[in-house]
Amino acid sequence: MSSSVLDQRRLGVRAILEAIAAGSITPGDVIRESRRRIDAGDAEVKAFTRLSQVADMPDRGPLAGIPVGIKDIFDTADMPTEMGSALYRGHQPRFDAALVAMARAKGAAVMGKTATTELASLDPVETTNPSAPGRTPGGSSSGSAACVAAGFCAAAFGSQTGASVVRPAAFCGIAGFKPSYRLLPTVGMKTFAWSLDTAGLFAASVADVALFADRLTDRALTIPAEFDLSGRTIGFYRSKVDETIEPSMAGAIETVRRWLEDAGVRTVDVAEPGALHEARQSHTAIQGYESTRALMHEHRAEGARMGPKLKAILDEGLDVTPEAYDIARRAARIGRKAANALFEDVDALVAPSAFGPAPEGFGSTGDPTISKLWTLTGNPVVNVPGLATDAGWPLGVSVIARFGRDSHALAIAASIERLIANR
Amino acid sequence: MSSSVLDQRRLGVRAILEAIAAGSITPGDVIRESRRRIDAGDAEVKAFTRLSQVADMPDRGPLAGIPVGIKDIFDTADMPTEMGSALYRGHQPRFDAALVAMARAKGAAVMGKTATTELASLDPVETTNPSAPGRTPGGSSSGSAACVAAGFCAAAFGSQTGASVVRPAAFCGIAGFKPSYRLLPTVGMKTFAWSLDTAGLFAASVADVALFADRLTDRALTIPAEFDLSGRTIGFYRSKVDETIEPSMAGAIETVRRWLEDAGVRTVDVAEPGALHEARQSHTAIQGYESTRALMHEHRAEGARMGPKLKAILDEGLDVTPEAYDIARRAARIGRKAANALFEDVDALVAPSAFGPAPEGFGSTGDPTISKLWTLTGNPVVNVPGLATDAGWPLGVSVIARFGRDSHALAIAASIERLIANR
Repeated sequence: MSSSVLDQRRLGVRAILEAIAAGSITPGDVIRESRRRIDAGDAEVKAFTRLSQVADMPDRGPLAGIPVGIKDIFDTADMPTEMGSALYRGHQPRFDAALVAMARAKGAAVMGKTATTELASLDPVETTNPSAPGRTPGGSSSGSAACVAAGFCAAAFGSQTGASVVRPAAFCGIAGFKPSYRLLPTVGMKTFAWSLDTAGLFAASVADVALFADRLTDRALTIPAEFDLSGRTIGFYRSKVDETIEPSMAGAIETVRRWLEDAGVRTVDVAEPGALHEARQSHTAIQGYESTRALMHEHRAEGARMGPKLKAILDEGLDVTPEAYDIARRAARIGRKAANALFEDVDALVAPSAFGPAPEGFGSTGDPTISKLWTLTGNPVVNVPGLATDAGWPLGVSVIARFGRDSHALAIAASIERLIANR
Repeated sequence: MSSSVLDQRRLGVRAILEAIAAGSITPGDVIRESRRRIDAGDAEVKAFTRLSQVADMPDRGPLAGIPVGIKDIFDTADMPTEMGSALYRGHQPRFDAALVAMARAKGAAVMGKTATTELASLDPVETTNPSAPGRTPGGSSSGSAACVAAGFCAAAFGSQTGASVVRPAAFCGIAGFKPSYRLLPTVGMKTFAWSLDTAGLFAASVADVALFADRLTDRALTIPAEFDLSGRTIGFYRSKVDETIEPSMAGAIETVRRWLEDAGVRTVDVAEPGALHEARQSHTAIQGYESTRALMHEHRAEGARMGPKLKAILDEGLDVTPEAYDIARRAARIGRKAANALFEDVDALVAPSAFGPAPEGFGSTGDPTISKLWTLTGNPVVNVPGLATDAGWPLGVSVIARFGRDSHALAIAASIERLIANR
């Protein structure tokens, strides 16, 4: 029997779990529908690199009936983990990554592995953007964002060393949640730069990603029904980077600000402190130093088989001395304190998730510059979908909260998402 | 032609590199001698689980001629990485772990994989203690400590989540260096608890381990010739844990204190602050929570095939809630600040490396309680060898320095080692 939940363009975590709880659908119904959609649409979207067997999916647990896409840098025991790289063709791990094991333990249905740029770096993949034809879905978690945006899966796992969760979520017009550093375990996820790599999640809406994260981690992350924005203070973060954002994105930020004020929210400008400007600059040295060590054997033995953007990062990283790395780490540490201090005056910050909508074509996954600051500081960031350019390309707005206040980031982001949806 | 360097009971990093630089031996001489010793002695010591091909060893680079043993939780592309576990029998990684790749890039000779307790936990292995017959070499880095103590290798890689570098170094009477958290990359090293796991090094003496670490990392860690202890202040760290140390260890600590004072060093008592007592208690919850996630698939799918001590840690870890984990992490964070504050008044701290010498027999790898505090806080710790019980069993003394001041920890430890050697 067909159900309205399964007729929606996108599969919503909350709607699915409510329908299953109400007995109107079964986990198996959702899993079959997910697979049907993948079979029908993925030849065009190219979100998946490999599909799992639908027969053995769990039918009980708090996430039973939630079809999940797994970025192909997370180990899976039942499917190869190829990391978008010729170097890992056919590579078969013996056990699941921590996050994959957690999802399965909760009953989630792992539908397959999703396309990632090589080793979660910058060389584009073939995945298309279901929300913006002819444009990149962003990266490096390209397939994970696309499989949710296309309505194939209700949730997906990604990772972010620069902007690889927030950016594709913004470009594809879905919710992306980059939690506080190490809220989600990265064990069994391929390392690029260990002090930056952060596992993250995608879902259709902020409420969906929050509920999924809650059930996955047993943390109180679901949006409280009574949460109310009015009377709160939201800071609008301004940095030098903003000078080059596109007019459509500048307009989106101003729109959100106006609507927040209409809703009784106090808004203030927050200028980037010098310490965070410095911290932003330090990202390159930290990523360079750590990635050349994390991938030293791959680079030395098989560098010639790597994509040009990945190889360039690793080649340049060799020039970062331990002294330069230590200076960069110090800047990052000072930046983290400065980031914390920002939240003494505001409940959350709002900033662009990217410079504009997804760029045209597939030659680049877009510019990660804006988001990488918050990857470095470790603050939770939620991409709020719902706004778009005049042509209809999604524009993403980031909500950033204090380190460890992930539930707060999600609740404020969900309120802004509702505000947008209700206009 | 035989050389005096290769006639020593233990292979010294510094002596080897000096002899190679002087042209009196070649890297190949050392590698062949290392292999000869392994072939002659490892049937008794059981340090190695697998040996590599000697034919292809590098003959140039700043660590050429340094034979190294690799704890079998570090990935190696040319040998299986079995982690002391039936679950990983025959497991063959595609690329080397970061630290292994760094060692090879510097010209070090990877002689083989060394015995580790299962997944670097507490279930003992068959390795014997070359410095204390009939006694455990300690764990979890049992084979790495033993291969250096037996004179098979000049250096070895280990790891520490509780006390798995400092304790075996102490029990085997060699130098062990647990650097500041994440000074050495842990990429490609099996994770047990990500906020605790620390890669560490073994060598015959403190000067040897410092020189090896220097050349491995390109950091200025070699002991400066002009380094002088006199006029400095060394704190003797006292906690509740000390109430149960054995008389031989209490005597060793008092001996070091007297000799330091004779050498013009100011010594003071440093009582464990409340915050560090709390931090010590938090280790169990952090390790429990993280290990049950890091090893979730292994535990769920194959728990019945695990050793009883490992399985017990994972079973109990399931009871640690996210709330309890967050409380423990907060205690750890406060503890790290308290640990830093200790070094405003002292140049370094001295504490026992274990409760006494290696316990008799092979049923346990010894008690990790003393050292795990400094694993949690991330401070650098160096085990200083040279003292012994009346029966001749090694007693290890730890030198602890401020986070990030690894060169300082090594220099002070080397001075104390010299002080001991000269009495």
